[in-house]
Amino acid sequence: MTDKNIRAGEATVADAPADDARLTFIGLIRTPWTDRRDCPRQGSEDGPECTLVVDEAWHPALAGLEAYATIEVLYWLDRSRRDLLTQSPRADGTTFGTFALRSPVRPNPIGTSIVHLDRIEHGTLTVRGLDCLDGTPLLDIKPDRALFIPKALPKPGV
Amino acid sequence: MTDKNIRAGEATVADAPADDARLTFIGLIRTPWTDRRDCPRQGSEDGPECTLVVDEAWHPALAGLEAYATIEVLYWLDRSRRDLLTQSPRADGTTFGTFALRSPVRPNPIGTSIVHLDRIEHGTLTVRGLDCLDGTPLLDIKPDRALFIPKALPKPGV
Repeated sequence: MTDKNIRAGEATVADAPADDARLTFIGLIRTPWTDRRDCPRQGSEDGPECTLVVDEAWHPALAGLEAYATIEVLYWLDRSRRDLLTQSPRADGTTFGTFALRSPVRPNPIGTSIVHLDRIEHGTLTVRGLDCLDGTPLLDIKPDRALFIPKALPKPGV
Repeated sequence: MTDKNIRAGEATVADAPADDARLTFIGLIRTPWTDRRDCPRQGSEDGPECTLVVDEAWHPALAGLEAYATIEVLYWLDRSRRDLLTQSPRADGTTFGTFALRSPVRPNPIGTSIVHLDRIEHGTLTVRGLDCLDGTPLLDIKPDRALFIPKALPKPGV
């Protein structure tokens, strides 16, 4: 039962099969960070420029996105283990539940960031505010919820 | 080439295989809305109480989450088609790119909401601010990024 890859106080889930739904990568993210130790813990608006390189098939889906100064980006943290229930961020035995952290280690390792959109050129978005490794697979791009006004007519539920 | 399920002006992607990564459902969401037509277009802080029912295996991962008044919730919009490049929200021929909308129809139909956390009892979270159908599969829960302070020591990248 000894697992050398967990820290004092951490716990894992017994069984976490990951086959309830399937994702498709729509592109990839270019950042200055190639080693996990160099990544910031959280992105910053005045961080370096990063790019979202959208696959050509999805370029038409970017139409109209340039109207938003900030956008929400979802990406797949493909190097993360997925079975930790509790984690010890400082490796000192003090633990927090996985859902009480924004750690990349989680059952579905999906990163979400709100980033500043600088420009879109040939399907490549230049942004600031990311915190992920170079080469991270891209899952989705949406207008920042704080700026978005639904385009469709209201429904009964509002 | 005629697809009765798309509106005037909308376009689909030629091929969108979804098998690059796999998700595991960690629970499900209970809301008052059982028909898509009744769901609000966006959740509201003064909307009705909804619950996030977390699977028992993941209950230990909730430890410490009660410290946050607002949390981020990720869920799987399992009834959405995934191949629309452009969409006509008012069905009037005016289209927007999928990534310029917060529509549930997207290549990876993952909903993200910031909700008010009222209480946690026996692995069930009572929240306000959701907009999804009753029975929607739950993917992840994280502290609101605006409230979260990383627990680990800073790294070179900050």
